Amino acid sequence: MFESYWRKMGDKCTMVIAGYESLSYFADAKNLCWFLEPKLEEAVKRLHLTVGNAVVGDHHVVVGTGSSQLIQAALYALSPSDEPEPVSVVSAAPYYSSYPEVTDFLRSGLYKWAGDAHTFDADGPYIELVTSPNNPDGVMREAVVVNRPGQGKLVHDLAYYWPQYTSISRAVDFDVMLFTASKCTGHAGSRIGWALVRDKDVARKMTKFIEINTIGVSKESQLRAAKILGAISDSCLPFGPSKYDNFFEYSKTLMAERWDKLRAVVKRSNIFSLPKYPNQYCLFAGDSSEAHPAFAWMKCNDRIEDCDKFLREHKIVTRSGRRFGTDPKHVRISMVSRDEEFNLFLQRLSTIQWSG
Amino acid sequence: MFESYWRKMGDKCTMVIAGYESLSYFADAKNLCWFLEPKLEEAVKRLHLTVGNAVVGDHHVVVGTGSSQLIQAALYALSPSDEPEPVSVVSAAPYYSSYPEVTDFLRSGLYKWAGDAHTFDADGPYIELVTSPNNPDGVMREAVVVNRPGQGKLVHDLAYYWPQYTSISRAVDFDVMLFTASKCTGHAGSRIGWALVRDKDVARKMTKFIEINTIGVSKESQLRAAKILGAISDSCLPFGPSKYDNFFEYSKTLMAERWDKLRAVVKRSNIFSLPKYPNQYCLFAGDSSEAHPAFAWMKCNDRIEDCDKFLREHKIVTRSGRRFGTDPKHVRISMVSRDEEFNLFLQRLSTIQWSG
Repeated sequence: MFESYWRKMGDKCTMVIAGYESLSYFADAKNLCWFLEPKLEEAVKRLHLTVGNAVVGDHHVVVGTGSSQLIQAALYALSPSDEPEPVSVVSAAPYYSSYPEVTDFLRSGLYKWAGDAHTFDADGPYIELVTSPNNPDGVMREAVVVNRPGQGKLVHDLAYYWPQYTSISRAVDFDVMLFTASKCTGHAGSRIGWALVRDKDVARKMTKFIEINTIGVSKESQLRAAKILGAISDSCLPFGPSKYDNFFEYSKTLMAERWDKLRAVVKRSNIFSLPKYPNQYCLFAGDSSEAHPAFAWMKCNDRIEDCDKFLREHKIVTRSGRRFGTDPKHVRISMVSRDEEFNLFLQRLSTIQWSG
Repeated sequence: MFESYWRKMGDKCTMVIAGYESLSYFADAKNLCWFLEPKLEEAVKRLHLTVGNAVVGDHHVVVGTGSSQLIQAALYALSPSDEPEPVSVVSAAPYYSSYPEVTDFLRSGLYKWAGDAHTFDADGPYIELVTSPNNPDGVMREAVVVNRPGQGKLVHDLAYYWPQYTSISRAVDFDVMLFTASKCTGHAGSRIGWALVRDKDVARKMTKFIEINTIGVSKESQLRAAKILGAISDSCLPFGPSKYDNFFEYSKTLMAERWDKLRAVVKRSNIFSLPKYPNQYCLFAGDSSEAHPAFAWMKCNDRIEDCDKFLREHKIVTRSGRRFGTDPKHVRISMVSRDEEFNLFLQRLSTIQWSG
């Protein structure tokens, strides 16, 4: 949905790469993450400093083929290697629907999916995945398992902690923080994610995972992401020669417009409801607003058992609450689809309520 | 080492990509491999038809983040899902040193490394990885486990089955065939590999693995690889406007020069020896020559126990035969390093023998 912004940028974000460039596996043999392009590392750090959403000073940057690969790298790095049983991996429901599959698809002996963090009470080591703002419901999250000293490790998935989706209330400073270009800039096809990792050994083991899994990360994607992230930082300069709109203001306006439209349609309905988000001050924007999450977590009323099934009958494809470890009265709807798709969805949704 | 070729190509292989292009996860939602760029699929098929090294007619193309990811995708796809015990994965020694680690690093319950295929005699299902030409020793290989009907699955790793390394004696036609841009063109930094897969369900399951693991493969890398592979096919046209050298002739000449130099140094030595490769007719080149593998599999004489250790004392870094499941009298040496590195290696190697 941010394509219009990138079209307006014209040549400023065009990447040119000659046939003889970036042939090697290595980007910087001296770096702990030896396949990380120095330009990307620089662009990542500059963007976090510009937005103020995460500390970068003492953390190591590890690049991944999207944040999916980094989640697996983090599980690998944080699993105790001396335990006979796999470590439990939990996340508070509703949780990102891919977590169970990503954790269990290879039946690893290192880690296993153990479900909703709210109800987790087994002894022994565990890893809690904390998504904040949360996918699917957009809520700011903290770890929920009562931390048993030395037993729990946390991975913070911060894919949506950017000003177009939510207010930036502080620069977060966790042990393992995951970000991805696809949610920040819209460049999902590039498959570029990055982790900010406090502990050197954890960063080294995550790097090792990516080395074994894919021997590094596409150089072309890294260099392009560096250019795109750099352009975003440039667009945020308060003074200076930039003739381009501030990317986050632009994309936040788009998100707010979509949420306004959806809330208007839902308000006229006697079937659906949406979460309410508090007004919160954003340090980056310098004003207060409510969140505009990348997904709408919509609930239907008591007369409908299975909201996903009900909507499919009206030609609206969503993802059922069941997939997120919760009830089928909820569905997740993308708020970052292309204009045509979003408008068609709104049109179909409004038809339902007039007949409802 | 093929960088000089790509420099000569100038602008012909330059990729330009605008900021608003390739934003989506999808490349072609109708394709079984939905993240495969149609241009890359076309370029892959055209190159195999041009070189004549593999059939492409009925096979499905699955793109991966290098062939490492495709090996894991193949293990995932070929593991029986209804077995309580992990399937045995074997390869004939000397085998590619990464196979054991790639198979076992997550302690998967689906598959486990079972060592040298020559000595494998357990009952039950197995997967044999057949590397041909073989890494590390450059020999053309066939499966060695006596096939028990319905129990064994084969994965052919054909990374080095290109005319600069070995004679193309036929278009191979196996169930699962893996290739990678890094060995064919030298673009290791792009992390682009592809599988040619006969069975639709296997191709679908490999695609599923890549979906869970990394949600597809870098679009930038795919588009650049399409351009590079296309330029190679163009360079092979016997007539027409191409003013560029045939890529495979050019790179074969480079490989042959390096092998001649190494053989000359080794011949003067009373310490080392190299494998001999038979003269074989190449359908692509239209003449006979011996192989020029990407690695030299060098052996030291009986007075030296550990060849890798011995060479390290002379500032030559190799990979010990132990890593490939065989004896420490062998080492693997890269024949595709950069010119400076290769020349330094030759220089140091020749110093040893004069003093030896």
